[in-house]
Amino acid sequence: MTTGLSELGRRTTEPPISWLMGLALSRPNLISLAAGFTDNESLPVDFTREILHELLRHSKRGRPALQYGPTAGDPELRSLTADRVRELDHGAGARAPKSRYPTDRTIITNGSQQLLYMLTEALCDPGDIVLVEDPTYFVYLGIAQSHGVQCKGLRLEQDGIDLKHLDGTLKRLKRSGELKRVKFLYLVSYFQNPSCLTTSLAKKRAALELLRGYEKAAGHPLYLLEDAAYRELRFEGDDTPSALSLKGAEDRVLYTSTYSKPFATGIRAGYGVLPEEILKVVTRIKGNHDFGTANLVQQVLVRALHSGRYERHLKQLRERYAHKAEVMLGAMRRHFPSDITWPDTRGGLYYWVNVPGAETGLESGLFKAALDAGVFFVPGGLCYADDPARPRPRHEMRISFGAASLRNIRAGVKLLGGVLKSAN
Amino acid sequence: MTTGLSELGRRTTEPPISWLMGLALSRPNLISLAAGFTDNESLPVDFTREILHELLRHSKRGRPALQYGPTAGDPELRSLTADRVRELDHGAGARAPKSRYPTDRTIITNGSQQLLYMLTEALCDPGDIVLVEDPTYFVYLGIAQSHGVQCKGLRLEQDGIDLKHLDGTLKRLKRSGELKRVKFLYLVSYFQNPSCLTTSLAKKRAALELLRGYEKAAGHPLYLLEDAAYRELRFEGDDTPSALSLKGAEDRVLYTSTYSKPFATGIRAGYGVLPEEILKVVTRIKGNHDFGTANLVQQVLVRALHSGRYERHLKQLRERYAHKAEVMLGAMRRHFPSDITWPDTRGGLYYWVNVPGAETGLESGLFKAALDAGVFFVPGGLCYADDPARPRPRHEMRISFGAASLRNIRAGVKLLGGVLKSAN
Repeated sequence: MTTGLSELGRRTTEPPISWLMGLALSRPNLISLAAGFTDNESLPVDFTREILHELLRHSKRGRPALQYGPTAGDPELRSLTADRVRELDHGAGARAPKSRYPTDRTIITNGSQQLLYMLTEALCDPGDIVLVEDPTYFVYLGIAQSHGVQCKGLRLEQDGIDLKHLDGTLKRLKRSGELKRVKFLYLVSYFQNPSCLTTSLAKKRAALELLRGYEKAAGHPLYLLEDAAYRELRFEGDDTPSALSLKGAEDRVLYTSTYSKPFATGIRAGYGVLPEEILKVVTRIKGNHDFGTANLVQQVLVRALHSGRYERHLKQLRERYAHKAEVMLGAMRRHFPSDITWPDTRGGLYYWVNVPGAETGLESGLFKAALDAGVFFVPGGLCYADDPARPRPRHEMRISFGAASLRNIRAGVKLLGGVLKSAN
Repeated sequence: MTTGLSELGRRTTEPPISWLMGLALSRPNLISLAAGFTDNESLPVDFTREILHELLRHSKRGRPALQYGPTAGDPELRSLTADRVRELDHGAGARAPKSRYPTDRTIITNGSQQLLYMLTEALCDPGDIVLVEDPTYFVYLGIAQSHGVQCKGLRLEQDGIDLKHLDGTLKRLKRSGELKRVKFLYLVSYFQNPSCLTTSLAKKRAALELLRGYEKAAGHPLYLLEDAAYRELRFEGDDTPSALSLKGAEDRVLYTSTYSKPFATGIRAGYGVLPEEILKVVTRIKGNHDFGTANLVQQVLVRALHSGRYERHLKQLRERYAHKAEVMLGAMRRHFPSDITWPDTRGGLYYWVNVPGAETGLESGLFKAALDAGVFFVPGGLCYADDPARPRPRHEMRISFGAASLRNIRAGVKLLGGVLKSAN
């Protein structure tokens, strides 16, 4: 007798990262530089307590926070969110077109993760194609696999995808008759997970134009899905405007981001700004998923944003991550062999480390030696799409300063340095 | 140019109920007896404030509530949930087999809605068949339609589905070669939405056995999906054990229920007890949806259950709904014509009213006259599957005492009574 599972059920296999998470649980003495969790010490416990007290102080006025709300999200949070994205793109008080960031094209979701899922549901059938960065966010690769979607990797440069590679890939897909299967280009555009690179506005503009040029042959819109999850975790320097700021964005850019990482991961709320037609479909899908994100969580965010606590917390958080990144950088410089390299990091939670001499996979000698030494990381290979167009790179590792304490960052990098030296 | 939507995207049409919800928003003076929202006045604002204060009182000990948790749910909440379902089935302190309600077959989700969605994803391909009660929970019909799943309606008797109809339907599907498309039988087994009927344990046992008898021909397990969302909203009398209490349940019963309705709908948390293999797949799917329900919400429930506040609130809530049901009953007896009938209701949020003389659909004269009078309801036809095996019934309406105030229950039923009298 078969299991009776659906095709989606059978395709949704155990992600390799679960094994790493299980490892952390079963051997708590191991130092994990793998987890994408956020910093524990800086969680806004006091702010959240104050906000919840204000929210629920009056037995009567507190009720809306405990009742159902609209499926697309609390109207005030949607409005604050639209304004926030507009201000990020154009500066506070700027006379940027409100119409480009309308509340009614904004949706609140259970983290941006749920929105990535629903966009894939809304747009992709099994056999469809999504273009991704090479490497990319590995959980997105899991969503795509679960839906039977093929991911094609695009090479990365300092300021985002290699546009020639994008053009060449689209040209090749057009020739092979597969262009009609392409639904969108997925970019993690700020402090990318895992590579830490940020996409320039010029590249976003060029990518959008390139995609537009292939739409006639595709027979449908080719969207740019911009995942800005790490946008607010910027240590220094100026922000880059999102693709929403570009001409023609309103019907082609799917913008997703989150309040979970900049505020608190235990409060799962993300959001998106979407073309009208797509928002309509995604809201219906969300109606089937859950009728709307927990209202209590949304009300906490409304108050956090209104009261300025969100900004105050974010400022502290940026300083904290900048410091942790600095500590990790210092430790890498001290303990890693000189042939080990990594791109500079000005935000996010990760360093993306290139290990030229050795493989880093779960089955590799290096990974096993690291485990024996008491430390582990995310093997870089897990972040690459299963794309027959190139061999899967195996010489990188993602190490995170997000969740680890300062002491564990120092100790973990030191242990890893010892392992890298013996592997040389 | 086409829209580029997936098949799921195109199948996910606007549910008729949105129109009703829009109506309530755009004409706030209308009395809604349609909403399935819960009672506003009895929301546990004070309890929740106390719990959150306890949770977040210490800056350090409060952190876990604001951090990510495991995808399947907080371990303590899973354990409390498994124990709770066992106690409901076997009585507190009973020496019921713990092994039949193990924590590791329990999952916490964003309302039970998300679990219904994920079970459909895990088990159903387009063209598959789900057997449902006739009538059934209309949002489930939306989920099924979105996934291209056909629903076949089974006639209801006082104590649940007509077993002869179930057997006949399975026999017919076997003959037509469609039995392999059947994945599960979906029962809303306590104070059913909309019919208010409760399925007896004998019927659950018989249904489970009947399904088992067709498995060989189907080639895969035929599950019983028991949706117990209204189980705890019982006004009086004894609880009925769930199908989990039956022999052979551990690999065939998919049990779903919720903390949202008995505690607070703004805290979106549901749960399930599932066969091991199905739990594994559903947990992976949830990893792709959202990595786990907001931890803050789960921690509130852990404390509510531990401290006894959950039980205290539930007791008050049952008394409140029993009173509101009584008020609605009195008003119906006073104002409805004598040919209007409804089954007795001992729990839940609804009355299911039979209007023999007139149609009740959104386009019907009766519905329009009710709107003109200032009141509206859910037309019964919306709760029936699109099943060519029978004409869609059109002479019922669902009226809810959940969200409406006592004053609006009285006034709404009176207005509706006037409309029903003129329609006669």
